[in-house]
Amino acid sequence: MTLYVNLAELLGARIEQGLYRPGDRLPSVRALSLEHGVSLSTVQQAYRHLEDQGLATPKPKSGYFVPQARQQPALPMVSRAAQRPVDISQWDQVLELISRPPGGDVLQLGRGMPDISSPTLKPLLRTLSRMSRRQEVKELSYGSLYGDPGLRAQLSRLMLDSGCQIAIEEIVTTTGCHEALSVAIRAVCEPGDIVAVDSPSFHGVMQALKGYGMKALELPTDPLTGISLEALELALEQWPIKAIQLTPNCNNPLGYIMPEVNKRALLALAQRYDVAIIEDDVYGELAYSYPRPRSIKSFDEDGRVLFCSSFSKTLAPGLRAGWIAPGRYLQQVLHLKYMSTGMAAQLPQLALAEYIASGHYEPHLRRMRSQYMRNRDCMIDWVSRYFPAGTRVSRPQGGFMLWLELPQGFDSQRLNRVLQPYNIQIAPGSIFSAAGKYRNCLRINYAGQPTPALEQSIRQVGECVAALLAEQQLVHNSAEVAVTP
Amino acid sequence: MTLYVNLAELLGARIEQGLYRPGDRLPSVRALSLEHGVSLSTVQQAYRHLEDQGLATPKPKSGYFVPQARQQPALPMVSRAAQRPVDISQWDQVLELISRPPGGDVLQLGRGMPDISSPTLKPLLRTLSRMSRRQEVKELSYGSLYGDPGLRAQLSRLMLDSGCQIAIEEIVTTTGCHEALSVAIRAVCEPGDIVAVDSPSFHGVMQALKGYGMKALELPTDPLTGISLEALELALEQWPIKAIQLTPNCNNPLGYIMPEVNKRALLALAQRYDVAIIEDDVYGELAYSYPRPRSIKSFDEDGRVLFCSSFSKTLAPGLRAGWIAPGRYLQQVLHLKYMSTGMAAQLPQLALAEYIASGHYEPHLRRMRSQYMRNRDCMIDWVSRYFPAGTRVSRPQGGFMLWLELPQGFDSQRLNRVLQPYNIQIAPGSIFSAAGKYRNCLRINYAGQPTPALEQSIRQVGECVAALLAEQQLVHNSAEVAVTP
Repeated sequence: MTLYVNLAELLGARIEQGLYRPGDRLPSVRALSLEHGVSLSTVQQAYRHLEDQGLATPKPKSGYFVPQARQQPALPMVSRAAQRPVDISQWDQVLELISRPPGGDVLQLGRGMPDISSPTLKPLLRTLSRMSRRQEVKELSYGSLYGDPGLRAQLSRLMLDSGCQIAIEEIVTTTGCHEALSVAIRAVCEPGDIVAVDSPSFHGVMQALKGYGMKALELPTDPLTGISLEALELALEQWPIKAIQLTPNCNNPLGYIMPEVNKRALLALAQRYDVAIIEDDVYGELAYSYPRPRSIKSFDEDGRVLFCSSFSKTLAPGLRAGWIAPGRYLQQVLHLKYMSTGMAAQLPQLALAEYIASGHYEPHLRRMRSQYMRNRDCMIDWVSRYFPAGTRVSRPQGGFMLWLELPQGFDSQRLNRVLQPYNIQIAPGSIFSAAGKYRNCLRINYAGQPTPALEQSIRQVGECVAALLAEQQLVHNSAEVAVTP
Repeated sequence: MTLYVNLAELLGARIEQGLYRPGDRLPSVRALSLEHGVSLSTVQQAYRHLEDQGLATPKPKSGYFVPQARQQPALPMVSRAAQRPVDISQWDQVLELISRPPGGDVLQLGRGMPDISSPTLKPLLRTLSRMSRRQEVKELSYGSLYGDPGLRAQLSRLMLDSGCQIAIEEIVTTTGCHEALSVAIRAVCEPGDIVAVDSPSFHGVMQALKGYGMKALELPTDPLTGISLEALELALEQWPIKAIQLTPNCNNPLGYIMPEVNKRALLALAQRYDVAIIEDDVYGELAYSYPRPRSIKSFDEDGRVLFCSSFSKTLAPGLRAGWIAPGRYLQQVLHLKYMSTGMAAQLPQLALAEYIASGHYEPHLRRMRSQYMRNRDCMIDWVSRYFPAGTRVSRPQGGFMLWLELPQGFDSQRLNRVLQPYNIQIAPGSIFSAAGKYRNCLRINYAGQPTPALEQSIRQVGECVAALLAEQQLVHNSAEVAVTP
């Protein structure tokens, strides 16, 4: 990474974390040059970079300042604790969301699709193309059950960034994070077992729990700090919970990053009650702050954390290239993977190994992180402008998903039907809950470049929401506006 | 397909089926020309083709004859009926077989690897390469949960060859046949359920049954005609069987093709006792006879057959491109696929659709079928020559796998250990049985071109077998030699 980008990310993270507040003067160019041992022009470049990102404003002859606070919409409310573990439903709604491939006439705001038009993906496509030209055993043949050793070596290195020291032998590649989560759940639980989950939570896991006959216990989850540890402890006391499944970094759908102290506390609870943790890190590398947040796995001492991830959000979902670091459950995971797919497609694994080894992955991540951060601000702006006043909005610290909350009684499935003539689809909130909660919420994607056409679509969604609210005579009971940097 | 190849395949099939017997005079060139309405030179070309395959011998001024019979080794014995459904073991042996990727120093005679060096695969690689060069949404993005519509259209057409009229909407692509079988089993059965299987049987299915907590009831299986219908009926009478899982076409590992009349009778039994049939057709397109044998699915009237297949044996396993036509279980299969992997990798699906649509698949299959048939004869010859007298050998009617049976008491796992210094690995028979039967059997692969080095390796295996037999003072009790064309 170039020096100025490094420095800009560091400063950006400090601003994001609130170390410098809106209106504050940022350190002088000279001071930063001395502090970090870089040239004056490097610092100036870093500031220009921050300016581009809207994180710093120059004032003539006074230096750089943190821009004045914008009004931010209120955050979604913390979900209430579930009364008991429940069987999972909502499959028909999930099916509706995913049965149409992206790229058609419909603007699929509901799907977890990254921006795949970035030029930083080109080297990956060139590698895929070059590898296919030669006719070699490796691309066409069965691979090892563990997955391609070259890719696993790169994964072992990548995982260092989240604080994990994982040997190549402890990593197994999978067909997407989906398969990783699916085998993780079965490695740890039997049908009938209870799994504690953050709430709202990824619908893929919900449906897997449903399919394997397990029950989900949804725990209250704060939109900024994640799963409630108090509620978790109470639940562990009360129920024979087998595993905790959660997405602590750049949570889907809420976007928060769980504070490190909470991650440690959660692990301590898991140790105390001897339950496994299934950690979904699929968005973790898309955190806007630098360095990327640590995983719970990085604190794991006795192999109880099954770390699941993939390149579906960072690069492209069509590759179906995921992995799992299953700790003490390695043997079960190997058998379950053999049962489920035998092995993953070879070509994507080989091409990814080369793409990462050649140093293309890091610049790509950097680009996507800052693009998604800019897009987030833009999307929150649009929602504030075009949605009814009082719409509650998440404040994602990574990834490319926004969670919106409307008054109780609002029906986001109905919204989808109303949006059909406009060829727009959102993700109804109910699929993120085992029990069909969050009908009044929706998730939208802000991965793509913010174009006037996209703005128009968001405006359209906002108008439809307003119309539905008016029709149902619903108002925001507890609308409030928070001011944050 | 060119006319002469068509005609040659037809004649070849008649010879294979025993319509013309060894020493018989084959129809004259003139008669065939009249019968099929083709030119004399086309018939002559067809005969030269058969000559190349060793299926016809010219005699000056008398025409073409079926070559004299060679001595064929005796067939493996029909397995005895299992006393009861059993839990499945042998995972450690399967793991040993598959944990090393092919293409290293070890000659992996045990694996189900097709020959991927054929020039007829080149167009597929070119397509993969070309598709990767453009940066399009489809390759990198999520596809539909059903799979790529273009590929499914081709699959619908391909399935006509096995007598199936299946609409595109009834086909779901999967990550290899492995995933197809895995979701099929779970679509039909609950943990604790009993599945009737042919025996010996594919270890992938065995391990899936094990993992999902089901029991396998192994039925006696004839090495030429497949699963015993009498035994099946008895079992259906006696046990609450939920499904029958079998590989009726070019069976793995025995190589037989179940006669059409048996397929119909099996379906009738399934209807009478209301059980599902999980049909593995992964080798079906590699039948040496032409046209290819019908699938059980082709007789299915009420959607009880779940047809599973892939391109892993016909093209290349590294693609992980499989599919399932699940009949009435479509909705369950979609949910199970979503739980297991979400979707399959996009690029292989798109490239395969184009490869088949451009007419490259049929010539490839033709080439592989005749290569594998020649290789089979060569491998049986070598085994007859280099293995101890009395070794029983299967007579595959398709695919590229040979099943060898040695006297009771022989230990093929021990053979693998003895072969280690020679860098040769065979598949021990025990992994093809839920209960670890067939320890005295082994499976070897004859996909690759028969080179002197391969001959030397088979000789080596034969010598090691003889040494082990001598050490254990084992002899063939019931060795016999059958003469067939």
